[in-house]
Amino acid sequence: MEEQKPAFGWAARDSSGVLSPFNFTRRSNGDEDVTLKVLYCGICHTDLGIIKNEFGNAMYPVVPGHEIVGVVTEVGSNVHRFKIGDKVGVGYVISSCTACDNCKQDFENYCPKFVPTSNGIGSDGKPTYGGFSNLLVANERYVVRLPNNLPLEKIVPLLCAGVTVYTPMKYHGLNVPGKHLGVVGLGGLGHVAVKFGKAHGMKVTVISTSPSKEKEAIEQLGADAFLVSRDPDQMKSAMGTMDGIIDTVAASHPIVPLISLLKAHGKLIMVGVVLKPMEIPVISLIQGGRSISGSNVGGMKDTQEMLDFAGKHNVTADVEVVGMDYVNTAMERLKKGDVRYRFVIDMANTIDAA
Amino acid sequence: MEEQKPAFGWAARDSSGVLSPFNFTRRSNGDEDVTLKVLYCGICHTDLGIIKNEFGNAMYPVVPGHEIVGVVTEVGSNVHRFKIGDKVGVGYVISSCTACDNCKQDFENYCPKFVPTSNGIGSDGKPTYGGFSNLLVANERYVVRLPNNLPLEKIVPLLCAGVTVYTPMKYHGLNVPGKHLGVVGLGGLGHVAVKFGKAHGMKVTVISTSPSKEKEAIEQLGADAFLVSRDPDQMKSAMGTMDGIIDTVAASHPIVPLISLLKAHGKLIMVGVVLKPMEIPVISLIQGGRSISGSNVGGMKDTQEMLDFAGKHNVTADVEVVGMDYVNTAMERLKKGDVRYRFVIDMANTIDAA
Repeated sequence: MEEQKPAFGWAARDSSGVLSPFNFTRRSNGDEDVTLKVLYCGICHTDLGIIKNEFGNAMYPVVPGHEIVGVVTEVGSNVHRFKIGDKVGVGYVISSCTACDNCKQDFENYCPKFVPTSNGIGSDGKPTYGGFSNLLVANERYVVRLPNNLPLEKIVPLLCAGVTVYTPMKYHGLNVPGKHLGVVGLGGLGHVAVKFGKAHGMKVTVISTSPSKEKEAIEQLGADAFLVSRDPDQMKSAMGTMDGIIDTVAASHPIVPLISLLKAHGKLIMVGVVLKPMEIPVISLIQGGRSISGSNVGGMKDTQEMLDFAGKHNVTADVEVVGMDYVNTAMERLKKGDVRYRFVIDMANTIDAA
Repeated sequence: MEEQKPAFGWAARDSSGVLSPFNFTRRSNGDEDVTLKVLYCGICHTDLGIIKNEFGNAMYPVVPGHEIVGVVTEVGSNVHRFKIGDKVGVGYVISSCTACDNCKQDFENYCPKFVPTSNGIGSDGKPTYGGFSNLLVANERYVVRLPNNLPLEKIVPLLCAGVTVYTPMKYHGLNVPGKHLGVVGLGGLGHVAVKFGKAHGMKVTVISTSPSKEKEAIEQLGADAFLVSRDPDQMKSAMGTMDGIIDTVAASHPIVPLISLLKAHGKLIMVGVVLKPMEIPVISLIQGGRSISGSNVGGMKDTQEMLDFAGKHNVTADVEVVGMDYVNTAMERLKKGDVRYRFVIDMANTIDAA
């Protein structure tokens, strides 16, 4: 373990969030480790928040990236699930304790000691550097197989955005044909939620502040209906019609009107990190026996299940593939919501050149 | 239906909430109706809120009472489940549309047109008068059988308090042996929640602001542990240990410390009406995939199931039986929390005398 692998990536050095080339090292490949050459890395809204230190937890230099697709270049002697040449994925979780109740139940994402792939502190006490880099070393537990029938670059966002919406749909019974799912926000997470909802055979209604997104929601993504959240008449007409809502918006927004859309026993699930506390009248939950839940990505077993499901049902993300040297522009555009729907960096072909 | 039955009860006339004798009429017994002579009626915290117009919806004169036990004195020609002489119960719901999705699924409590037993507007357009009265007429759908092995007066509070805590425990999986249930507040609802939790074979921890309640919680009610919510060290030591919490407190109180007590996927269920909105940071739900839910009493099928379960497991409420003429004093004492744990009015023996 003493020997270190030289690695290369792009890092933010301060809260300007500007990314620039960065040389660092990764641990050598251990017995249970897989080393991968990074092929693609997605840009998640959380990356943007971290590099600008919006959550107050940035440990500069920060190498972002936790939607990683690569090809295996080295496997440890105890690795059983992967071999050199396999195309694999790594998501938000790079390590966990493996011993707590959550880990034992395959909820590594809720392990109190879970380590994020980027901007975490690994078990070796060193910062974790994410997928905006040429290679990655990971314990095989945190590596997943990819469906072989889908284009790699369109799988990339499933590793965070995909599992983030798939998992709560599973645990809250929002994966049942004929049920009515609302999806709030049509970004990286929302557009995949629509596709998973349709793949599960549900009725899907997109709820958005932007009337301009109706056409794409219905024609491109296959949503059944569209609600403009700022239109009180539209919202009123849909009151009490939804079994559940996946709310992907990572900015403060009215919650009570969304609760009103739920049927009895309906569930509103928040997956976007909103810093300002929600104000929730208890009565809005008591009437109808409704719930508000949060959900944070997913465990490794659920991540694999989600990818297998995506392969079976041809669920992919809509992506704009860019080069590494475009990343700062991409971040600016992401901040403005100017992407349909996820940036993916073509790491293999552009990181060395950059 | 033209003929009306003369009835007698006690009513509040204004927001002083002071109750005094009141003559009124009830509808004559219809084909699907049951008439009962009221034997006992419980005093719920909601009654106190309504008679003082704290919810802004009092329709004076208000005859409170929705935890009603009586004996059947008349049955309609289409009544199949009850006969004269049966001891029966009526709870919070006296009517619903019977045709909506919620009614069809036995969730009359979430019917948009459900009518509360007291201070509602019945389908005849007239106000509903509750159980602080000598007799009651109800469609048999809203009448339940009572377990015959338990003292009647100790069953009374189960008809609202009991079903209010039993139902969310059922629907949120908090009825499983070995799981850990928290109960916030040790009043009419909370003390029954402890008993149902123990009857389900769970570990039950009472969470209260009052250290003085520890002895009764553990020795009298059978709780396994007691947490003083104002003691940060105690609260910290219990972080992440509970599968679910039933919060019965009907006054504004800190919610985030309660969420912190939950395990991953833990559920906080609010059953007390708090008028001031809760402030909930989304991150407190996202971390651990936790939920906050509300729940409002229960449907008729669940009410019957709860009573059958209570009979099988000897779950009763701890009550202080009082006479009708004591009701204003009882309301004052209830306001101060000075009752262990529910007042029940001995209607049969005291209403005429009063």
